[in-house]
Amino acid sequence: MSVTAAGGFTAAGITAGIKDSGAPDLALVVNTGPRRAAAGVFTSNRVKAAPVLWSEQVVKGGRISAVVLNSGGANACTGPKGFQDTHATAEKVAEVLNEADPGAHSSGEIAVASTGLIGINLPMDKLLPGIGKAAAELSPHGGEKAAIAIKTTDSVHKTAVAGGDGWTVGGMAKGAGMLAPGLATMLVVLTTDADVDSPALDSALRAATRTTFDRVDSDGCMSTNDTVLLLASGAARVTPGYEEFAEAVRTVCDDLGRQLIGDAEGASKDIRIEVINAATEDDAVEVGRSVARNNLLKCALHGEDPNWGRVLSAIGTTSAAFEPDRLGVAINDVWVCKDGSVGEDRDLVDMRFREVRITADLAAGNESAVIWTNDLTADYVHENSAYSS
Amino acid sequence: MSVTAAGGFTAAGITAGIKDSGAPDLALVVNTGPRRAAAGVFTSNRVKAAPVLWSEQVVKGGRISAVVLNSGGANACTGPKGFQDTHATAEKVAEVLNEADPGAHSSGEIAVASTGLIGINLPMDKLLPGIGKAAAELSPHGGEKAAIAIKTTDSVHKTAVAGGDGWTVGGMAKGAGMLAPGLATMLVVLTTDADVDSPALDSALRAATRTTFDRVDSDGCMSTNDTVLLLASGAARVTPGYEEFAEAVRTVCDDLGRQLIGDAEGASKDIRIEVINAATEDDAVEVGRSVARNNLLKCALHGEDPNWGRVLSAIGTTSAAFEPDRLGVAINDVWVCKDGSVGEDRDLVDMRFREVRITADLAAGNESAVIWTNDLTADYVHENSAYSS
Repeated sequence: MSVTAAGGFTAAGITAGIKDSGAPDLALVVNTGPRRAAAGVFTSNRVKAAPVLWSEQVVKGGRISAVVLNSGGANACTGPKGFQDTHATAEKVAEVLNEADPGAHSSGEIAVASTGLIGINLPMDKLLPGIGKAAAELSPHGGEKAAIAIKTTDSVHKTAVAGGDGWTVGGMAKGAGMLAPGLATMLVVLTTDADVDSPALDSALRAATRTTFDRVDSDGCMSTNDTVLLLASGAARVTPGYEEFAEAVRTVCDDLGRQLIGDAEGASKDIRIEVINAATEDDAVEVGRSVARNNLLKCALHGEDPNWGRVLSAIGTTSAAFEPDRLGVAINDVWVCKDGSVGEDRDLVDMRFREVRITADLAAGNESAVIWTNDLTADYVHENSAYSS
Repeated sequence: MSVTAAGGFTAAGITAGIKDSGAPDLALVVNTGPRRAAAGVFTSNRVKAAPVLWSEQVVKGGRISAVVLNSGGANACTGPKGFQDTHATAEKVAEVLNEADPGAHSSGEIAVASTGLIGINLPMDKLLPGIGKAAAELSPHGGEKAAIAIKTTDSVHKTAVAGGDGWTVGGMAKGAGMLAPGLATMLVVLTTDADVDSPALDSALRAATRTTFDRVDSDGCMSTNDTVLLLASGAARVTPGYEEFAEAVRTVCDDLGRQLIGDAEGASKDIRIEVINAATEDDAVEVGRSVARNNLLKCALHGEDPNWGRVLSAIGTTSAAFEPDRLGVAINDVWVCKDGSVGEDRDLVDMRFREVRITADLAAGNESAVIWTNDLTADYVHENSAYSS
């Protein structure tokens, strides 16, 4: 599992002391080759953390030799000092790795990712020594420890794996709040031992995130730090067909995305919103997002109240093609709204389980999309008001 | 105060039995003339309640002789039956009022407004007899009772008054949740005894709502029923200058809007977001709304945590003109973020009071806008999950 499920990678997760709690807070993932192809997607927030600005530049070169990730601080909104800190972090990783493998690493091929509180400078006096400690613990079995070290408010670490004949795609993710499209306070590192070049990695990764991470919308809040990286080592010496490879990447992303929703801060319901019979896929996504962000509906679902009126009022705020008197809404397969009005008896809806399925029928075409969200709970309010996070 | 502060109006508020609680649930406001000019603005939600569809048609004629309002049911998403019920309600009002004043009223000049749960047909067997009861209680002092009868989850009724030499603008409002632009589960009736024609009323009302009710965004949820009406009786036999009249209308709308925010469901903080130095007013409004809708920020402010990073991440999701490294944010006048990075000490921010002032400086121009919102609390979750509303 995790980032060392695929051959050609080592990883480590250690406690550098960035978090006051003493929990693990620094992860290192190293591509031992022979290939070092890579691709990445990043937050679409225009306020980007320093490590995002750095790693976007690294990915443009199509090569990543190692990724260093820290929890305990986002290094966002930290000005020029923040960017210098990211640069120094990449330099330190290259320096430490070159001790074992002289000349193999340069800072321009080291990706950096950070997560935690915005607007606080990282404690570099702890982070930099931590890099040496992590390098000393690098192992082809270090994937789980790396996944643990990137947790913030996550209650569990998240890993996934898929693959084909002789090759593997594995990955790890962190994220529990600030989950919204354009990614979602999530850090994700995917690795594969398939022999794939960076343009194919980029294409497969963008196709996968478009219908997975980009459609996870836990609380409508878009992060400054979201980073999803895909690294290929070529260690399996197999080049799968593009479609098969892309599907494996999509499977891992979908699995990790579902785990993010399942662990969202304070949530008691995982809500699957499927918009059907839309005129366009964009319409379906717009409607799905609008429903996913309706606080009143999210409260109602928390209370196990199949309040379909709030679904309709959310649909009504969009620019999607539909006629109000043709809309239909099912909650857990009971069509409580038909033709824009009262449908089957709402008392038939069984809301006892964690997963809630909402189907919105726009009666305007043949396109569809699925968006995942969570309910809104007092625990969410508590987790996000009781401390700085 | 209220809708009978201006001459030429009578009003009543009674219990028709629409609400199970036995609280007042039916209000009637009658323009006794001599003039019956009117204007209205309605929700921009594309899923509109039957009374909205009806009253939009009434307002097109430029005349309203009476308004009937009920709480206890929104008559939204109720199909053709819902529209028939609204029509029957207007017919009944005309019939009852014509008993005292034969031929003075026609149903096509009776506005109807409803508020309450979506997707439930109104109990017409209680509503129609209630109209006769309300008509019997019409009084030039009935404004307060009318304001009380339109409450839903409001903890207090809301009224306001302004005016000039010899003329008055008064009004009543209800609204406590589902407050968002394009109006806000709000019903508002404004009256004036100034002698103003319907085009001038329409212009003054649109100008007023654009910078008041349209900038109240308590929970990002847009209602199916929002209605704001302005009726002129001409009873004062004074025609004020347009600017003076428009300013009085704006003053009453601003006062009522502020009362809506102050009574929002479960809120413990009223948050004033002022966006300054924007390139355009539209940019300022877009940024203000994005900040107002950020659940993480709203939780942080509930916890009295001046978490300015969440303001920056909200600004970053907009298309407004700005450079990330020039942004500034003040919370209660302490500039905790300068040049997109750490500014004054966040411990200087005093968050003990109900009102919180956020200033976002885009450093991109000279335009500004103010948006009002509330914090997100466990009480909000409770009020909106524990029962159908």
